[in-house]
Amino acid sequence: MPKHYLGIDLGGTNIKAGIVDDAGRVLSRGSAPTPGKDGFEAVCSAIARLGGEVAQRAGLTLGHGSIAAAGVGTPGLIDFDHGAVLNAPNLPGWTDVPLAKRMSDLLGLPTVIENDANAAAFGEYWAGAGRGDGHNASPPDPLVMLTLGTGVGGGIVIGGRVLHGGFGLAAEVGHLILHPGNDGLPCGCGQRGCLELYASANAAARRAKEAVQTGRPTSLRSCTEPTAKDLFDHAQAGDVLAVEVAQGVCNDLAWTCITLARVLDPKMIVFAGGMALAGDWMFDRIRRSFRERTWRIASADTLAIVPARLGNDAGIIGAAGVAWEVSQRGVLP
Amino acid sequence: MPKHYLGIDLGGTNIKAGIVDDAGRVLSRGSAPTPGKDGFEAVCSAIARLGGEVAQRAGLTLGHGSIAAAGVGTPGLIDFDHGAVLNAPNLPGWTDVPLAKRMSDLLGLPTVIENDANAAAFGEYWAGAGRGDGHNASPPDPLVMLTLGTGVGGGIVIGGRVLHGGFGLAAEVGHLILHPGNDGLPCGCGQRGCLELYASANAAARRAKEAVQTGRPTSLRSCTEPTAKDLFDHAQAGDVLAVEVAQGVCNDLAWTCITLARVLDPKMIVFAGGMALAGDWMFDRIRRSFRERTWRIASADTLAIVPARLGNDAGIIGAAGVAWEVSQRGVLP
Repeated sequence: MPKHYLGIDLGGTNIKAGIVDDAGRVLSRGSAPTPGKDGFEAVCSAIARLGGEVAQRAGLTLGHGSIAAAGVGTPGLIDFDHGAVLNAPNLPGWTDVPLAKRMSDLLGLPTVIENDANAAAFGEYWAGAGRGDGHNASPPDPLVMLTLGTGVGGGIVIGGRVLHGGFGLAAEVGHLILHPGNDGLPCGCGQRGCLELYASANAAARRAKEAVQTGRPTSLRSCTEPTAKDLFDHAQAGDVLAVEVAQGVCNDLAWTCITLARVLDPKMIVFAGGMALAGDWMFDRIRRSFRERTWRIASADTLAIVPARLGNDAGIIGAAGVAWEVSQRGVLP
Repeated sequence: MPKHYLGIDLGGTNIKAGIVDDAGRVLSRGSAPTPGKDGFEAVCSAIARLGGEVAQRAGLTLGHGSIAAAGVGTPGLIDFDHGAVLNAPNLPGWTDVPLAKRMSDLLGLPTVIENDANAAAFGEYWAGAGRGDGHNASPPDPLVMLTLGTGVGGGIVIGGRVLHGGFGLAAEVGHLILHPGNDGLPCGCGQRGCLELYASANAAARRAKEAVQTGRPTSLRSCTEPTAKDLFDHAQAGDVLAVEVAQGVCNDLAWTCITLARVLDPKMIVFAGGMALAGDWMFDRIRRSFRERTWRIASADTLAIVPARLGNDAGIIGAAGVAWEVSQRGVLP
């Protein structure tokens, strides 16, 4: 059995790909624009072309037994039983498209598909935050990853596998409801009060802007349009209003950690995405708020709340990792 | 391999036991008082005695190859790696006691232990609400069960197995935080605003009492101390205040269903316990509140929100079921 996997991270704008070994190391990588407006078949061809390039770059050839399998992390809602993408808002015309089958044909490799946020979570579990600084015989399980960006993405690994749920919709933590009443902000998903309206990078920026508009004194006033980064920068510099707003965001994330702890009892919660770059200042506050508010039945210190480690590689490592995991179970398509 | 399992449901007051076949049918049952104050060894002996009785009643003998394994559902915090109960508030002196090993010696059977709420959830998955009206080749997975009693107990089945979590503390849904602020009621667990302070049977009774104390007109005034049953009875009879309070409880349970749906994406949520006897009136309102508030990305009708079916047998069937499940995986101790 060859020990190399092709990992593909499909986004609405770019495709990233890489060859990854069975220890989660990236041997080659590449990227290409996503020809989304040209439709499903064009995107599949672009993926296959890029896959061939990164294979060659690693000294391997597709479909000649030197690569065990391919994994594709894709946006959208997935039918895991049929390897199909049911819909993907950023990919026009993707309605129940047989992505796994098509890529398997084009690549000449067994191919599994996975939701992009789930794949990234598996990457961190397998080769990132979950692996820690060295070889880890027993990675933290369950593990939850939250990606704080435009929205809040989520992925869960339990029992060494990605949790799909009953309808392929597990780990949609961005749509946990924090404020269920009529005062909860309306979300595009149809709910009110979703987490991502309060604790994504976009939400942090909005909360900063609203705070400036109250007229209270703040150094944030110097920013034309404060970003999440501005908010955390000014908070770290000691601006009282910025600290207050940033602490509010951290409290909401800590509350989310408590929710996840009561349901899943994870060993590790990983935060990724631009906002996680706020670093120790943010993590210290999330951890403190978690410890102050979680129960005293068991130690609050057993749950690790940590930053992601794989950065932009999480998608390709995770997609390759999912292919590796499925092949380990002997159930490759 | 014999097809019979001994299921034991250990409570602070009573021990229940039964012989259960590999389809989840109870062949014999019995119960005995829990000699809790006499300590761990006395309780183990009482369990073994009762186990012998129910075996005999089913025409079987312990330790002679006619019973495959025993499962014990126990209150308290469990160390699953060592089959030990770390502590159990209602069982004096139970501090890190080797329950699985001791029962295995006394019964002459491989013995697994499980948290009582988890065992009951597995019972409903295997042979109760999850089985439905007939033979079910593919039970609803994930399944979550909430038991609405003095508190709110919880159990989760994923991938055909009970979810333990990283530290044996998964599915503590009674301690999901509904109200994280300082206005959240203080809970014995150290948190504020826990679900069980708003939506257990005890909480429903308290909410009814508080509503009566506002002085608003209500038929509940005729009850000296309204119970959860009184609340739902008066609501069904049309009392405006009772409807309002009962609806509030149902809304909190629906919110909890949304939380569980976003994290786990279960196919079924089962409500058990005294309050679930409020029946269709309560279930209709929980389902409606869920549908009104959950996202529109996927159909709200895919998640079944249903009453438990096994009643008092859930504990013994579930404990036997866990033993069956572990033996199916070939990892009996």
